Amino acid sequence: MPRCLKCGKSRDLIKLERHRIWVCRECYPWFFEKQVERAIEEKNMFTRDERVAVAVSGGKDSLALLHVLARKGYNPKPFFIDLGIEPYTRHARKIVEDVTGSLGLELEVYDLKKERGAGIPEVARATRIPPCSICGAVKRQAMNIMAKRLECNVLATGHNLDDEVAFVFSNVIDWNLEQLARQKPVLEPGQGMVKKVKPLYRVTDREVELYVDVLGLNVVKEECPLSRKAKSVDYKRVWDEIESTRRNAKWSFYSGFLKRLQPVLEERFQEKVRLVECEKCGEPTTEGRKICLVCGFFERVKNSTTQ
Amino acid sequence: MPRCLKCGKSRDLIKLERHRIWVCRECYPWFFEKQVERAIEEKNMFTRDERVAVAVSGGKDSLALLHVLARKGYNPKPFFIDLGIEPYTRHARKIVEDVTGSLGLELEVYDLKKERGAGIPEVARATRIPPCSICGAVKRQAMNIMAKRLECNVLATGHNLDDEVAFVFSNVIDWNLEQLARQKPVLEPGQGMVKKVKPLYRVTDREVELYVDVLGLNVVKEECPLSRKAKSVDYKRVWDEIESTRRNAKWSFYSGFLKRLQPVLEERFQEKVRLVECEKCGEPTTEGRKICLVCGFFERVKNSTTQ
Repeated sequence: MPRCLKCGKSRDLIKLERHRIWVCRECYPWFFEKQVERAIEEKNMFTRDERVAVAVSGGKDSLALLHVLARKGYNPKPFFIDLGIEPYTRHARKIVEDVTGSLGLELEVYDLKKERGAGIPEVARATRIPPCSICGAVKRQAMNIMAKRLECNVLATGHNLDDEVAFVFSNVIDWNLEQLARQKPVLEPGQGMVKKVKPLYRVTDREVELYVDVLGLNVVKEECPLSRKAKSVDYKRVWDEIESTRRNAKWSFYSGFLKRLQPVLEERFQEKVRLVECEKCGEPTTEGRKICLVCGFFERVKNSTTQ
Repeated sequence: MPRCLKCGKSRDLIKLERHRIWVCRECYPWFFEKQVERAIEEKNMFTRDERVAVAVSGGKDSLALLHVLARKGYNPKPFFIDLGIEPYTRHARKIVEDVTGSLGLELEVYDLKKERGAGIPEVARATRIPPCSICGAVKRQAMNIMAKRLECNVLATGHNLDDEVAFVFSNVIDWNLEQLARQKPVLEPGQGMVKKVKPLYRVTDREVELYVDVLGLNVVKEECPLSRKAKSVDYKRVWDEIESTRRNAKWSFYSGFLKRLQPVLEERFQEKVRLVECEKCGEPTTEGRKICLVCGFFERVKNSTTQ
């Protein structure tokens, strides 16, 4: 009869196939948090003394991450990026405010409308660029800005193993070697970018869902109304299929990538990407550009409204 | 109304989705052969003056390849490897003898029992090694030996695009970078190995099936009775799925691999593999071994029967 790895009881067991173990629901948070702590420690992401900026969208991953850090005695500084996609954003913001409140944490907000004068829907309408492309660039920049505002040297995001596998996989399908060269759970700081870490890179979608479920957390379940069916969703399905026939295939693939291909590519493509300061906002942007992608978007919004 | 790309007729059309064209059944061989010729010429595989050893198993791919070469004025020298897997081998050999006879070509045979004293089933039984592992090594060596016996400087095999995609993919999943570094449609000769080429690398499983069907060729349809469900079959299904959502995904993946990752890996891992002559049979084997894998197998067969 299977028993819980930690307490030995046989009730309310959860089977963790890829680890070949059983844990009861009560002990599951212990197991999950241990995985996250291991990632943080093994990769020297941050210590308990460091202020860690945490990008919290309200989805299961970022909220799980925030809880682990709070519960395990780290020093998380959560922030929310208000993208003005109503009523979706308002709903997410409310959830994040409630959660951070209940954890006794102060929540900082980067409000795109206040900072830049328009939300994602207006930018998409004015520029006719797909909203996900705009949103990606805006969030990347906002995260960097917020980490600095919160006086944090490190920024943590909720990317989990399924995300990382899908990302590597999609860049393998297209052979984006430069992207692959930079794909790591820890990106060291430099050229105006703070250190970025992914403490959930060892845990899967399903394991995060279980954690959220066991802790009874309220999370945003809706998809963003502007998002199209992303390519990475299909790749996640492909990987669920592969994992169903080969135990722990996702982890083998991602950890193998980090051990084998990533170092080869990093060596080959290192320092190919140089960043310079945007002449308008001062944030880092690719060499050769005068202004950053985000400033470019909002210039176009301004021009479209003054015409 | 769709029309045949070549003759303009609208009857018996075949849709080639990934090329965005229609061809009628009558003109299909022209299209297929053009793809193969293009592969041969672009990659400098061989000329019409060169003797080309062709490994013919009796399956759709090798028989399609042999037909293209014969019909397009190349100089193919077919050979069959008799592995002694009865009654499967006998059936395949009969088909290959018929086909080569009808093409007016002489067929050479490498008979494993005559050459080495035992067939695959006996070796598998004596060594307890999985038959596919034995067979792979035996065939690789037999092909090299036969190319030299037939006085050919180049050896052609029937690997098609689906095979290449599945092979690259499975080596990506496991991050076998050394294998990937050597994965090309043309392997230059050296260290006792003849030049190896894959003239079907631009055409898919389905396109080969169509060619065989249109020409009305009799091919071996049975699976080898010793083969287990190979991993690469699952990967082929994964790729059929990806191709169904992204047009020409297989070709993009494989050609992208050849353009982008393969050269990086070849540079990184070049000359890592050194071959030496087997002390028993003289064929190339990995540095550090005294005798080759195949001689090793048959030593074990001999020991098991003398005990």
